[in-house]
Amino acid sequence: MEKTITVLPGDGIGLEVVKATTAVLDKTAELYGHSFKYQYADIGGASIDKHDNPLPQETIDTCLNSDGVLLGAVGGPKWDNLPGDKRPEKGLLGIRKALNLFANLRPVTGHESLTDSSTLRKEVVDNVDLMIVRELTGGLYFGEPQERREVDGEEAAVDTLQYKKSEIERIVRQAFELAQVRSKKLTSVDKANVLESSRLWREVAEEVSKDYPDVELDHMLVDNAAMQLIRDPKQFDVVVTENMFGDILSDEASMLTGSLGMLPSASIGSETPGLYEPVHGSAPDIAGQGKANPLAAISSAAMMLKYSFGLHEEAAAIDRAVSTVLTDGHRTGDIAKEGEDVLSTDDMLEKVLQAL
Amino acid sequence: MEKTITVLPGDGIGLEVVKATTAVLDKTAELYGHSFKYQYADIGGASIDKHDNPLPQETIDTCLNSDGVLLGAVGGPKWDNLPGDKRPEKGLLGIRKALNLFANLRPVTGHESLTDSSTLRKEVVDNVDLMIVRELTGGLYFGEPQERREVDGEEAAVDTLQYKKSEIERIVRQAFELAQVRSKKLTSVDKANVLESSRLWREVAEEVSKDYPDVELDHMLVDNAAMQLIRDPKQFDVVVTENMFGDILSDEASMLTGSLGMLPSASIGSETPGLYEPVHGSAPDIAGQGKANPLAAISSAAMMLKYSFGLHEEAAAIDRAVSTVLTDGHRTGDIAKEGEDVLSTDDMLEKVLQAL
Ligand SMILES: CC(C)[C@H](C(=O)O)[C@@H](O)C(=O)O
Ligand SMILES: CC(C)[C@H](C(=O)O)[C@@H](O)C(=O)O
Repeated sequence: MEKTITVLPGDGIGLEVVKATTAVLDKTAELYGHSFKYQYADIGGASIDKHDNPLPQETIDTCLNSDGVLLGAVGGPKWDNLPGDKRPEKGLLGIRKALNLFANLRPVTGHESLTDSSTLRKEVVDNVDLMIVRELTGGLYFGEPQERREVDGEEAAVDTLQYKKSEIERIVRQAFELAQVRSKKLTSVDKANVLESSRLWREVAEEVSKDYPDVELDHMLVDNAAMQLIRDPKQFDVVVTENMFGDILSDEASMLTGSLGMLPSASIGSETPGLYEPVHGSAPDIAGQGKANPLAAISSAAMMLKYSFGLHEEAAAIDRAVSTVLTDGHRTGDIAKEGEDVLSTDDMLEKVLQAL
Repeated sequence: MEKTITVLPGDGIGLEVVKATTAVLDKTAELYGHSFKYQYADIGGASIDKHDNPLPQETIDTCLNSDGVLLGAVGGPKWDNLPGDKRPEKGLLGIRKALNLFANLRPVTGHESLTDSSTLRKEVVDNVDLMIVRELTGGLYFGEPQERREVDGEEAAVDTLQYKKSEIERIVRQAFELAQVRSKKLTSVDKANVLESSRLWREVAEEVSKDYPDVELDHMLVDNAAMQLIRDPKQFDVVVTENMFGDILSDEASMLTGSLGMLPSASIGSETPGLYEPVHGSAPDIAGQGKANPLAAISSAAMMLKYSFGLHEEAAAIDRAVSTVLTDGHRTGDIAKEGEDVLSTDDMLEKVLQAL
């Protein structure tokens, strides 16, 4: 199989982790007889520095002209005080919209050998295995009007939470599809006792559920979900929710495993290439020092193989390699406990390549 | 001091816990030479059954005509399938708006003797002591338009997140006042990298902070706050945030102590009586069986003494009594570990009265 991958290193440790990841992709291609070509483009702070724009049109075109996008990370203190439309995260929001990436998949898997570093009790988080499916191109993030206005003679600000039925339907359908190949259990999270958009969300989820009679659907209010994720995360398998709730809950859930440096993500649309990125940010404090943990980016690449290229066996091989290095006790600084040997990004990459 | 307290027992265990609480208030009044008069009114499901309305005007009038309101709990499966405007929680939202209760105070205190039942590690939650200040009458909960409409030829739903400057200012000011008598540290939570209302929120918080030079203000994004509450809750003292974020974060935070049955809340306005209620719900499964834990309602009454009546010494006495019964190992079913003696609501009340 021949595939063209757009690589957007972005900022901070983004550069280091995508470098390690392309090495893993190359090795996988070699082992399974595929060919991956890379084309690089700018995004985020690095792009602001070069083009005065966090997302040049050229970057969008390059992405559209490829089979999958691998993103490192965007942002850093250097660009924190720029005006809103010049900030690195505008690049992220922009690329989501431009590629119509409406579904953000955030798997949370507790590697048993790492849950010691979770602040939750080991028995609560060991073998956690859930997937948050977050709507990514609607809701408060993109609703209009979003503006300052005068209300009752004083300044006010307004954001709009809007969902069309079709927007809800496609994300809920995506979640049902995922649930079908997992434990056949889907939790739809909303705030239907307060929000009109949540009531529509719930109606649509019920409607779509008729097409998936083998999947058990239940509804949970977002405040309760925020509690239940801590009280008993193993009750969840696939969770689907709107953009802002998903932003909050997926970050909350990322704390369960005690290792943000391990978590991948996928953002997918229907006709466009998907975008894959580690959940950890650009970590400016350790950038450029060869200390970054590349495993989340590598796992994100595995998601690309699976969801964008349909290469299930290859994806599973990468996942297994990551598991093996962890079980063998290899650790980068972010996941090492006191007294444990600390590997550099390159050393960790070496271990993964060997395990492959 | 003579005070009139409106008691809204509501539904489920609400009835039992407010009964225990008025007994504690009576004892406190006796000890300190005050007189508390009670007037009862209907709210929630019980009120729907009686008046076909979760919040009759008479209830509002009774509340307005008193010095403080003690609420048990509202809701239950019996009323779950009624249309939106007939649901018990409409009573809750309605009374908040009618009494202009713009500030919801949710203290989270880890009683060391109870943190064993938290799913978080003991060292992470022992002695946690934070206060979430949630805006309660604005934002997505009450913004207009909130409606179904046609967009691009299909059905859509819209909610509106609006804040006026004055609405932000009064809640932030309230939070600064609280921070001033606590650790002088205030964290304002928003999503300023996405929402216009959050950007206004941040500006106003900065402006108000000039009046409180002794309080250290910082800003945190809501997704990060959802992580940090689990990663290291002791970094927080007072947290202030808008309505929906506050709903989610305060419920998340309530899981830290491992004992929802222990957490009080206060909802206060400026000219109107405050409303005090335990955070636990109506717990229909154990209602009417004398099993309910009355401590959260009792602690809520202590908040009433403090915030509505200025009776600080008396409030502290109740808080001490609650601490004492816990330290002495007295437990209702919800907080008992295997093998521990389980007290009934009445027995627990007896212990508190003795400790007082
Ligand atoms: C940077 C920010 C705009 C973004 C979001 O809120 O979506 C981030 O938190 C994420 O979850 O990818
Ligand atoms: C019942 C519901 C409307 C309410 C809210 O969301 O405010 C509840 O969750 C709360 O926090 O008091």
